[in-house]
Amino acid sequence: MQIRAIIRIVGLLVMVFSSTMIIPAMVAAIYQDGAGRAFFGAFAICLVAGFLLWFPQRDQRKELKSKEGFLIVVLFWTVLGSVGALPFILSGTPDLSIAESFFESFSGLTTTGATVIVGIENLPKAILFYRQMLQWLGGMGIIVLAVAILPILGVGGMQLYRAEIPGPVKDKKMTPRIAETAKVLWYIYLFLTVACALAFWLAGMSLFDAIAHSFSTIAIGGFSTYDGSLGHFQSPLINTIAAVFLIISGVNFSLHFTAFSGRELSFKHYFQDPELRVFLGIQLVLTLICAMVLVGQNIYDSVGVAFDQAFFQAVSISTTAGFTTDSFSQWPLFLPVLLIFSSFIGGCAGSTGGGLKVIRVLLLSLQGVRELKRLVHPRAVYQIKIGNQALPDRVLEAVWGFFSAYALVFVVCMLALIALGMDELSAFSAVVACLNNLGPGLGEVALHYGEISDGSKWVLALAMLFGRLEVFTLLVLFTPTFWKS
Amino acid sequence: MQIRAIIRIVGLLVMVFSSTMIIPAMVAAIYQDGAGRAFFGAFAICLVAGFLLWFPQRDQRKELKSKEGFLIVVLFWTVLGSVGALPFILSGTPDLSIAESFFESFSGLTTTGATVIVGIENLPKAILFYRQMLQWLGGMGIIVLAVAILPILGVGGMQLYRAEIPGPVKDKKMTPRIAETAKVLWYIYLFLTVACALAFWLAGMSLFDAIAHSFSTIAIGGFSTYDGSLGHFQSPLINTIAAVFLIISGVNFSLHFTAFSGRELSFKHYFQDPELRVFLGIQLVLTLICAMVLVGQNIYDSVGVAFDQAFFQAVSISTTAGFTTDSFSQWPLFLPVLLIFSSFIGGCAGSTGGGLKVIRVLLLSLQGVRELKRLVHPRAVYQIKIGNQALPDRVLEAVWGFFSAYALVFVVCMLALIALGMDELSAFSAVVACLNNLGPGLGEVALHYGEISDGSKWVLALAMLFGRLEVFTLLVLFTPTFWKS
Ligand SMILES: [K+]
Ligand SMILES: [K+]
Repeated sequence: MQIRAIIRIVGLLVMVFSSTMIIPAMVAAIYQDGAGRAFFGAFAICLVAGFLLWFPQRDQRKELKSKEGFLIVVLFWTVLGSVGALPFILSGTPDLSIAESFFESFSGLTTTGATVIVGIENLPKAILFYRQMLQWLGGMGIIVLAVAILPILGVGGMQLYRAEIPGPVKDKKMTPRIAETAKVLWYIYLFLTVACALAFWLAGMSLFDAIAHSFSTIAIGGFSTYDGSLGHFQSPLINTIAAVFLIISGVNFSLHFTAFSGRELSFKHYFQDPELRVFLGIQLVLTLICAMVLVGQNIYDSVGVAFDQAFFQAVSISTTAGFTTDSFSQWPLFLPVLLIFSSFIGGCAGSTGGGLKVIRVLLLSLQGVRELKRLVHPRAVYQIKIGNQALPDRVLEAVWGFFSAYALVFVVCMLALIALGMDELSAFSAVVACLNNLGPGLGEVALHYGEISDGSKWVLALAMLFGRLEVFTLLVLFTPTFWKS
Repeated sequence: MQIRAIIRIVGLLVMVFSSTMIIPAMVAAIYQDGAGRAFFGAFAICLVAGFLLWFPQRDQRKELKSKEGFLIVVLFWTVLGSVGALPFILSGTPDLSIAESFFESFSGLTTTGATVIVGIENLPKAILFYRQMLQWLGGMGIIVLAVAILPILGVGGMQLYRAEIPGPVKDKKMTPRIAETAKVLWYIYLFLTVACALAFWLAGMSLFDAIAHSFSTIAIGGFSTYDGSLGHFQSPLINTIAAVFLIISGVNFSLHFTAFSGRELSFKHYFQDPELRVFLGIQLVLTLICAMVLVGQNIYDSVGVAFDQAFFQAVSISTTAGFTTDSFSQWPLFLPVLLIFSSFIGGCAGSTGGGLKVIRVLLLSLQGVRELKRLVHPRAVYQIKIGNQALPDRVLEAVWGFFSAYALVFVVCMLALIALGMDELSAFSAVVACLNNLGPGLGEVALHYGEISDGSKWVLALAMLFGRLEVFTLLVLFTPTFWKS
């Protein structure tokens, strides 16, 4: 393990991250909200810490092996999550404990969107902006991770996509290839964010709110600048815009990559992608189920409003954004539970969405169907195909491993919460919400996570990290094999 | 599909089953409890119905194909579950609706042990006896199913055991081999029941209670003749006896088969079985965790009582028996939730226990570990071994298919219950309890299932059936492939 080379990279990362603190500091200057000092403090601490990490190892420019890639990815999220907590710790409003600051920071960076804060609209604008920005940065990080890095590391069956990403040929070294892919992804991500912000602004949001919510929409994060989330605006148009951009962000970014990286724009490949078709089918079915129940039970005054709410809420929960409107909690219980279950499926692989990812659930289902067929005709050979491609057993096994690791982490976290004093329902839904990077839960954590114990907050922050890092990336660090040289 | 040959077998089954009604009728005669009429009625209806089914196809003695095996297995449980409801419908005490009668009968026959009845000790002795007998017959059925039939059908990876069962060679026809194996299993089952009843009796139960509880212990069923379950007796000795026999019944019966079917008794193979070792390890760890918490929090007066309660309750829930003592509900919430989660693991394959089965969870874990190793060394070849035997991928895939089908049925049943008006916690725990054939749940269904809606009772009866038939056996009937000739 080339520890010094890794520390060098982490030092660089922290220094780069420190510069992002300047933007909320500028927001504080504009609005004169008094939070500027916290961000300058955080900026200074980050910069110095990063420098101290980087300087002694500045000459350690070595090519890294894929094993070290795991460590860097985990450090990326844990270190940035930790220094990201600095502004919350340093700022007086909101008055957060250490555990709460970490929780909020991890929730932002992992795009989970669970919050410990009540009275969000009373916060300084700079803090509001910072929370949204954390999600946006986290979303960008996860796209690069999922599209460019995890396939190389081979986590959770995502080597499936290894061959599909255009760009430098396979036997090239890791670093330049990642950098090249990341640049294109960054432009796409920025373009979508600008488009989303414009749409929100034209639909009537203030410029500040439009930018803030575009950040958390494209990142499928779910943070808002209001306690009432997107429901605050009471606008069917804004709901629809959010849902449409959530769907776009829930698509595998390697499809967007293909669309933008050729000589001319192309869209045909979207419709040929089996994962995308299933993803859109899920959104459609969930919207229809919600709309039918809402209309049937006369929850809203008009059919139009019911459909708008159904579309918005189905997409928001199933893509794991977690935006809500105030009336969601009054829906017949069946619908929230259905949608929360659907968050286990989540977005497509290589999107900012959480959950198990559509492609994995699709593979598991195909395997289930194959088993049924095999029972009837034990001697026949059935192959699982995605599109025209036959799926290697190796990939299937990785997906299964992923599924069971996910289940294991789920159970362990839930038991830990209960041991720390939470009731079963809250514990169950809190783990669902955090592991799937969804955000809002049920019971004690339906509105916010402010009332739970500090220990529970740490457990849930860990659950967010497990979810965001596709479980295995983090789990592999706990194996003896990993540390043997 | 040789429908007539199948109807012939079902007719025979129902006729044989009718004869079992005579035993509770005799119990009614001894205790003069007035329930005799219900059992004679049920006997007559069964006999006539079975005869009418059998007589027209009495000459259809054809060798059946494995595909038809699925249909027979499902019919066995559904038809006997249905005619098993007759005595409850016909008898005035308890006063059960049709849905309740079916629920109670399915709960008995699938060895789930969930009940809709309150005031169990006030029931006629014959009804009490009948409920216990249903579990005992169901337990016998499941042993034959799991050891002799499912491996041949290849359900859920259990072809693993195909090679291991001694007896007629493989290319022999299906029916005689099953019959031969079943006979030996029957003697073992009977022997264990007699031993258990004797032990209970010597420990102070009345003869009636001893026999009744030996039935539901060996079947890992969990029905009792008292509302207070085994806790009624307030006897550490009885608790321990129950736990020991539950462990014996939770062992794969093909191990017992090997012990008894050779020229002399042999026990060495027990200790060589990897599944059994894990099973015993789980019991040990759960007992220790429970004991530590109970002692640490001073729940009981003495350390001895705490250990007795911990051992009894850990074994009872994790093997999916579902016996309780009255103090179990007052344990710190962490323990009941931990134990209820452990019921997903359940007993060994080929035992009367429910859940996913130890061997499957073991395989999934080994696969998870293998995936972690593969991440670190992508080019290395790792084989999964059970004992000295390398595991074919085919078996692993079947186990994974099983796991995902289990998860699917779980989610669908839970959503159905919530749509029928149950709260989330009760719905969650009711499905866990019924799908794992465990019995007691939490919330609304912590003590009994009497208060839930009729629709919910049907859903749960179906969940019991799915659990008991290892999901696939039932699911396969819903595929078009199955019905194509
Ligand atoms: K989210
Ligand atoms: K049971």
